[in-house]
Amino acid sequence: MERVRVAIVGASGYTGAELVRLLLQHPRADITALVAKERVTPKASTVLPSLAGVLDLPIERLDPESLAAKADVAFCALPHGASIEAVTALHARGLRVFDLSADFRLADPAVYAKWYGAEHAAQSLLPQAVYGLCEHNRDALAGATLVAVPGCYPTASTLPLLPLVRAGLVKIDETVVIHALSGVSGAGRTPAPSTHFSECSEGIRPYKVAGTHRHTPEIEQTLSRAAGREVRVTFTPTLVPMTRGILSTSYVTPSRDVTVESLVECAREFFRASPSVTVLDPGALPDTLWVRGSNRAHVAYALDAHANKIVCMATIDNLVKGASGQAIQCMNLSLGWDEGLGLRAPAMWP
Amino acid sequence: MERVRVAIVGASGYTGAELVRLLLQHPRADITALVAKERVTPKASTVLPSLAGVLDLPIERLDPESLAAKADVAFCALPHGASIEAVTALHARGLRVFDLSADFRLADPAVYAKWYGAEHAAQSLLPQAVYGLCEHNRDALAGATLVAVPGCYPTASTLPLLPLVRAGLVKIDETVVIHALSGVSGAGRTPAPSTHFSECSEGIRPYKVAGTHRHTPEIEQTLSRAAGREVRVTFTPTLVPMTRGILSTSYVTPSRDVTVESLVECAREFFRASPSVTVLDPGALPDTLWVRGSNRAHVAYALDAHANKIVCMATIDNLVKGASGQAIQCMNLSLGWDEGLGLRAPAMWP
Amino acid sequence: MERVRVAIVGASGYTGAELVRLLLQHPRADITALVAKERVTPKASTVLPSLAGVLDLPIERLDPESLAAKADVAFCALPHGASIEAVTALHARGLRVFDLSADFRLADPAVYAKWYGAEHAAQSLLPQAVYGLCEHNRDALAGATLVAVPGCYPTASTLPLLPLVRAGLVKIDETVVIHALSGVSGAGRTPAPSTHFSECSEGIRPYKVAGTHRHTPEIEQTLSRAAGREVRVTFTPTLVPMTRGILSTSYVTPSRDVTVESLVECAREFFRASPSVTVLDPGALPDTLWVRGSNRAHVAYALDAHANKIVCMATIDNLVKGASGQAIQCMNLSLGWDEGLGLRAPAMWP
Amino acid sequence: MERVRVAIVGASGYTGAELVRLLLQHPRADITALVAKERVTPKASTVLPSLAGVLDLPIERLDPESLAAKADVAFCALPHGASIEAVTALHARGLRVFDLSADFRLADPAVYAKWYGAEHAAQSLLPQAVYGLCEHNRDALAGATLVAVPGCYPTASTLPLLPLVRAGLVKIDETVVIHALSGVSGAGRTPAPSTHFSECSEGIRPYKVAGTHRHTPEIEQTLSRAAGREVRVTFTPTLVPMTRGILSTSYVTPSRDVTVESLVECAREFFRASPSVTVLDPGALPDTLWVRGSNRAHVAYALDAHANKIVCMATIDNLVKGASGQAIQCMNLSLGWDEGLGLRAPAMWP
Repeated sequence: MERVRVAIVGASGYTGAELVRLLLQHPRADITALVAKERVTPKASTVLPSLAGVLDLPIERLDPESLAAKADVAFCALPHGASIEAVTALHARGLRVFDLSADFRLADPAVYAKWYGAEHAAQSLLPQAVYGLCEHNRDALAGATLVAVPGCYPTASTLPLLPLVRAGLVKIDETVVIHALSGVSGAGRTPAPSTHFSECSEGIRPYKVAGTHRHTPEIEQTLSRAAGREVRVTFTPTLVPMTRGILSTSYVTPSRDVTVESLVECAREFFRASPSVTVLDPGALPDTLWVRGSNRAHVAYALDAHANKIVCMATIDNLVKGASGQAIQCMNLSLGWDEGLGLRAPAMWP
Repeated sequence: MERVRVAIVGASGYTGAELVRLLLQHPRADITALVAKERVTPKASTVLPSLAGVLDLPIERLDPESLAAKADVAFCALPHGASIEAVTALHARGLRVFDLSADFRLADPAVYAKWYGAEHAAQSLLPQAVYGLCEHNRDALAGATLVAVPGCYPTASTLPLLPLVRAGLVKIDETVVIHALSGVSGAGRTPAPSTHFSECSEGIRPYKVAGTHRHTPEIEQTLSRAAGREVRVTFTPTLVPMTRGILSTSYVTPSRDVTVESLVECAREFFRASPSVTVLDPGALPDTLWVRGSNRAHVAYALDAHANKIVCMATIDNLVKGASGQAIQCMNLSLGWDEGLGLRAPAMWP
Repeated sequence: MERVRVAIVGASGYTGAELVRLLLQHPRADITALVAKERVTPKASTVLPSLAGVLDLPIERLDPESLAAKADVAFCALPHGASIEAVTALHARGLRVFDLSADFRLADPAVYAKWYGAEHAAQSLLPQAVYGLCEHNRDALAGATLVAVPGCYPTASTLPLLPLVRAGLVKIDETVVIHALSGVSGAGRTPAPSTHFSECSEGIRPYKVAGTHRHTPEIEQTLSRAAGREVRVTFTPTLVPMTRGILSTSYVTPSRDVTVESLVECAREFFRASPSVTVLDPGALPDTLWVRGSNRAHVAYALDAHANKIVCMATIDNLVKGASGQAIQCMNLSLGWDEGLGLRAPAMWP
Repeated sequence: MERVRVAIVGASGYTGAELVRLLLQHPRADITALVAKERVTPKASTVLPSLAGVLDLPIERLDPESLAAKADVAFCALPHGASIEAVTALHARGLRVFDLSADFRLADPAVYAKWYGAEHAAQSLLPQAVYGLCEHNRDALAGATLVAVPGCYPTASTLPLLPLVRAGLVKIDETVVIHALSGVSGAGRTPAPSTHFSECSEGIRPYKVAGTHRHTPEIEQTLSRAAGREVRVTFTPTLVPMTRGILSTSYVTPSRDVTVESLVECAREFFRASPSVTVLDPGALPDTLWVRGSNRAHVAYALDAHANKIVCMATIDNLVKGASGQAIQCMNLSLGWDEGLGLRAPAMWP
């Protein structure tokens, strides 16, 4: 395919808006439809004011039949649960679907039911869904027609761990401690006390700690696949007063003698073919501002010899590499295109 | 010219970094050299960490001869004063020069001397310098080889006033009150007490009020040219705790009966050929977040009939439409290219 | 009276919480009841988490009879409209009432009806209500049993203008331009899109411009009283990404020769007996951070001789001098106490 | 002693300014001298603008002789190294000295030399220095004449761990993972690239990770004393874009069956006599905003049964309970006064 016609379902939320921004800069994609459940409007810029003078498609309610006529690819940026129906309808009509919700990320429907409180309503589709962590799953994404785009926390958390786990450098039988900080946009566009400016600004707050956050099983699934056996994590998400960005810091015990240099070397080898990941030089530490707005992950390592711990760090923009940018990266791979097509713009710094 | 080779002088500051970001997305520009007075380094990403994995040119000291061999165009993002020498040297060697400093903005060297405390060291070049407010000066920019890119405050302040002044809708003999708010990046990259996080965050502060800010004569020059007679402004810049963005609010007295609709209509006509300006619908009010990271200005008007005042508002990103993006817009016009080339990406929202 | 027993009605919002914080530090006040319409709870700290371990009264529904039995003074921090009924009921039962809503600020019920869209439901009480701008109305507050605590914008806007207007230093027939910036806490505790962190942070936005904000008639009422004739203002409120603070900047034309020194002198004379106002030295400019958390206003002046404008500036904390602190200042005066009692803590800086 | 005369040495920095703010509210302390190495001025408000109209002592250079004549107590808020000389001189002249630097915190001069890169210049004084973590060391503080006020990170990190370590509820032989987030004021008042607004705002960044931060040995010293044997920690400090506040999150392995309820119960017993610590109810999670400006610590626990980890959390204001407030708490105990005297004001929320 030379170009694709793209529909964005869930266009009026933050990841939807970010898909619009990124796809407008993609050289082979044309946005042909914007769809939402809320904030339907004849002129997208009334609900996405950054589009004034840039794009003035309407935002319409979902009509799978009409979408199938005008799009080859659909990005679904709907809440979990709501996503299953839309994905099923669009996939059945022949669109390639890239789902940014959690609905197709967990391979085991029992795990889904446990964490999302409902039976999965499209279990027959689950085996077709490819988990879209490109750096981990590149080959499976070629030609995929249904992709579960990873969560923001799992992306930031697993990227720095995967090379070490694959190389057998960490003790798998010990709990992996993952502490992750996120900007507030990860909570979405619906106002709530926890995202009210006056109570968010100038305050930091952990939430859903001690393994109660729904991204925990997704992280364990990825690490366990990489390790070939069960990996246990304790995961602590924390809200910090900024809009975009995730910093993950993980603590693992080395299984043998390592140096920071050898860890960096191992990760650089692992990410050799990955245009979206930069492994920082030994001694350098990451900052979310350095990747903001870009599809890039910065990965870094430190070694605490005194305490016998490897400290693994990664930063991403939760709305880009943690959502919309990664979804486009998946599309590129699915279509056999250069993985980084349209995704090479550097971060907006400062 | 099909493509241009571009040198960025002053690459290690914020407007320099922003030139790199924007030019990497420009379809007909190739960055061939990075130059700076400080933070010279074999690998740009050590001082511009957002470039890690994206661009790894060195940042070198200025050598006009060698630059002339590898670039057709130079953007100068040096402090005023320091800029004159670099601009002169590069222009003399045949480069098209787009100067982001204040050195070539004021046509009258006496005004320059008064406000910048030194004689202008290249007065013979001044007549060749074209003031680069594209929406005001489009024709003069075609073919220009030396362009003075406007200041951030003058851009935000004059854009909404120009249509009304040109159309004779405001009383020119009354002082124009201009109140402008700016994010902190306008103060540059050098740390100072006034830009220290703990004293900036959670505080707003006017500075250089009552006509003491150096952008005042530049604003008056542009408005006076448009009016055909002297315009007086009182200008109040204010620092607000965010990184990017300027909001200007101006107060003028209507010279005859107007409505918000007629003001919007007047401005839309004025900006008809301007891809970077959007005049908001009557009743809508702008927000700097809606233009952040983009080369777009949002312009809006309100009418206070009770107090007999027109309220003129504009928002821009000070580093883009207020500096680096506008500089590229000038280059496009200078080279006879589409004015918006490489500059159409929407704002990063949220 | 040696001590007062205080009830806080509307305790679960921001101004209510701030009343609790300030009254806990007042040497002659005892908080005996917390009342709210929402967030009623057996333990205040469940909705005001900063009180955990500090104060554990319940938050109860309003019962005027029982309040009258346990309090001498009531602070009403309810929304306008809702306040009238509570104020009337409590005042009728003999409590001194300090109302932080807009319900008793406008002397003319026709003006109230025009701006608040409803007839005033307690017009017979209006003549008893004393407008609580202490620096303007100190004498009338002695013994007052019903006080309308001024709005945050009117406090910040009128304080620097009052000395000049009283002294006849400004041209009253010209529109006064007032540009005011506010932190987000002024919008209250109820989440809304306009106060959602991701859309507030890193953006500034004017709202209700051109004389449409309800604080406009309150400002005009105060300035007109001081001038002895009608004063017209155009008022522009603007939201900035911080939690607390207001900066007002006003532009007036001098009626005769003035200097910054003479303006400062005039204001210092006017505020001689005012423990809550500091007039900055000539040349100094204010910052909201310097008054945050305190009941202090900083007032400053600049003179633009070129444009013939006086620039008047003031900073306050909108929740303290703009609301709860000022209410306590009113109580002190009403009870014949030292005006600054319990209100002398300096700002929390940084 | 009924009242004390207090000198603040290092008054022009953030912890110095905070000492002034808090001591002005202390019922039995009188500030009689302000001393600094930088920003000496005849009027404190020129460098501490929040004091305008509140306190106008000069800030003078240190003269131990004259200080001894006008103060009973000195708070030293100087950088480490510089503090030793001042502390020694003042202590020798009979003042009670509360040192906020790191100079007297580490009992072993060899450890000091290793971490601070210089021999300790007053080793003979070290045995007299009492470590001022009041909740841990209350009895030793009675009558103490030289107190080493704990660091901000050690305070936040050790408070929630101490009860569990003392009660033998955690496996001491496993590395304790401590992840701590801090607002930017912890970096002090001197501008630097790392605290420049445009590069701090909207970014989070770990620094001095993997046991390289100087607070690491202080944390280990306190935990080891409590455990009666060596405890090893890996400590990760991270800078977040806000001014004040620390959140510590620690991960330990339970040594026997515990529940969240039993952990809370254990901590409440431990802190029974501590007016500055609140242990949150099971299930509640802390937020730095809830303690901002106060001398309070919020402590909370969660249990990850799946991963077999206890998650221990605490929040403090780094400038208050993490520095100046804790110093005053130490003074109260040293003088035999109520530990919470002058320190009971609730947080400034929001």
